Amino acid sequence: RRKNIPSTEQLMEGILKGDQSMLARAITLVESTNPEHQEKAYDIIEQCLSHKNDTLRIGITGVPGVGKSTFIESFGSMLTDMGKKVAVLAVDPTSTLSKGSILGDKTRMPHLVNDPQAFIRPSPSGESLGGVARKTRESIILCEAAGYDVILVETVGVGQSETAVHSMVDFFLLLKLSGAGDELQGIKRGIMEMADAIVINKAEGKNIKQAERARSEFERALHLYPPKESKWSPKVVCCSSLNGSGIPEIWKMVNAYAIQSKASGFFKNNRQNQNTYWFYQTVESLLQRQFYNEPSVKKAMLPLQKDVEELRISPFRAAEQLLAAYSKGLK
Amino acid sequence: RRKNIPSTEQLMEGILKGDQSMLARAITLVESTNPEHQEKAYDIIEQCLSHKNDTLRIGITGVPGVGKSTFIESFGSMLTDMGKKVAVLAVDPTSTLSKGSILGDKTRMPHLVNDPQAFIRPSPSGESLGGVARKTRESIILCEAAGYDVILVETVGVGQSETAVHSMVDFFLLLKLSGAGDELQGIKRGIMEMADAIVINKAEGKNIKQAERARSEFERALHLYPPKESKWSPKVVCCSSLNGSGIPEIWKMVNAYAIQSKASGFFKNNRQNQNTYWFYQTVESLLQRQFYNEPSVKKAMLPLQKDVEELRISPFRAAEQLLAAYSKGLK
Repeated sequence: RRKNIPSTEQLMEGILKGDQSMLARAITLVESTNPEHQEKAYDIIEQCLSHKNDTLRIGITGVPGVGKSTFIESFGSMLTDMGKKVAVLAVDPTSTLSKGSILGDKTRMPHLVNDPQAFIRPSPSGESLGGVARKTRESIILCEAAGYDVILVETVGVGQSETAVHSMVDFFLLLKLSGAGDELQGIKRGIMEMADAIVINKAEGKNIKQAERARSEFERALHLYPPKESKWSPKVVCCSSLNGSGIPEIWKMVNAYAIQSKASGFFKNNRQNQNTYWFYQTVESLLQRQFYNEPSVKKAMLPLQKDVEELRISPFRAAEQLLAAYSKGLK
Repeated sequence: RRKNIPSTEQLMEGILKGDQSMLARAITLVESTNPEHQEKAYDIIEQCLSHKNDTLRIGITGVPGVGKSTFIESFGSMLTDMGKKVAVLAVDPTSTLSKGSILGDKTRMPHLVNDPQAFIRPSPSGESLGGVARKTRESIILCEAAGYDVILVETVGVGQSETAVHSMVDFFLLLKLSGAGDELQGIKRGIMEMADAIVINKAEGKNIKQAERARSEFERALHLYPPKESKWSPKVVCCSSLNGSGIPEIWKMVNAYAIQSKASGFFKNNRQNQNTYWFYQTVESLLQRQFYNEPSVKKAMLPLQKDVEELRISPFRAAEQLLAAYSKGLK
């Protein structure tokens, strides 16, 4: 069904009108591995780039079970009630080829799913984190051109996906549970340092006391880190996605960050740096793909790696030999 | 002076005999940018690789002023007194082309400098951290072939140099000062997570109390991190490089680590992974060097970057164009 893909013009017109179905179909092209679709997708991205809006991109991470979906339901619904248009995207490198695993279960966001002011898109699938992240990043551009003011990018609290999301958002939020005293355990290396805010979720009922204790522990822990380049001091706040307490304060905090970082020039600067970063990331990934796909490299690689491991050859000599195989293969 | 470089055979013979002047001259070849010297250096490295010894590589980092040199003087002298041969190398990407800046001031290690069981080599110079780190890593191979049992690799507590050193050592030691309550401030992002031990230096006289306080603060902070892959729980210890207190305990700790990680297989596995890591690092750096040195790439790069920053083109399209310029240039 839907064999006919709309023309680039039709898609662009739809996106700029805020037509969700056209936006969704354009994102499908972004996510496609079909070269023709990709070509079309890049035409669309190119055109969307010039439609700059005053948007806020917020990254949200946390381990499974921390309540990311319910937090997004609560936070996102508050924003749409305020008249904002909210897009929810995801980066999940564990998603299978057939279906994204986070945001896939939309039953956890019953209100937002039916909210015409909200657009929810599960994680694209992909062979690699780099591929998944690239597609999400490009989808952000499309959503912004479609008039979405606030982009929430969800990611799972495992692996390197946080770094990828951190490099595409303005504000990065780490969700934590108020648990039974072990809330400081199991924080992924480096995540604390990226966070602009730590939000302790499920601070409700009997949990409130524990959540407050966790909050002061995190505040003390954050003290160990040097000041951020943005000059923003990361905050630790408690909230309940269930009863909504603390949720408006989080939005106020994000706004305070935006005002401060726009005034200092960091906000714009950071986005430019992110663009440059993605440019060089893409260059290097394309270059490496080309290199490692070269048949002569494929053939020589594993035997050389084995030799390096067993100290039969130095890493440098082995690398030289692999480069030589590449050059020979190109000719 | 010394225009005549000894032959590869002479250098190898000297290294294997533990001749410091031959070792130093071989390292000079490793550090040279002259292609002929490099060729010779790689022949030597190749041959040294097969002379495996039971060595320990210890990384030492800390901000300027923390007392790295005096610590190395104290720790290294104790080791040579025990009959060990100790090599002290450095990774300092800020070193100028003319002279390494750390370990350059050998007056801080009066004993070790004159100790025939010790070999001290300032940081190689280089255009990039990658280059400096590679040279130091290769010098480790040479020192080990020359019979040095313990390799100390010093680095400055700034920038990405710790990561580079961490990926070439068995044990990573973070030196801290027992200061006036601000000892937890200013720890570089990620360094705490790499440390196998935090050593609070200058724990002497009036400082002892402060040092103990700092120790418990660090212990609490280390609790925030997940277990290491090595299963080693990082330790926090106090020492005085001045009066030697705590120094023997540090050596005992490093040995306990070695015994534990050798028994579990982590030690060997880690070195193999480091070799593989350096192989692919080298492949990618050679590939990138080749790419960015291509005149067609040089010409197209900055205008494209500017376009990306200003959103006139998407990072992906720009990357494609740069790759196209590269392919065209190669033909």
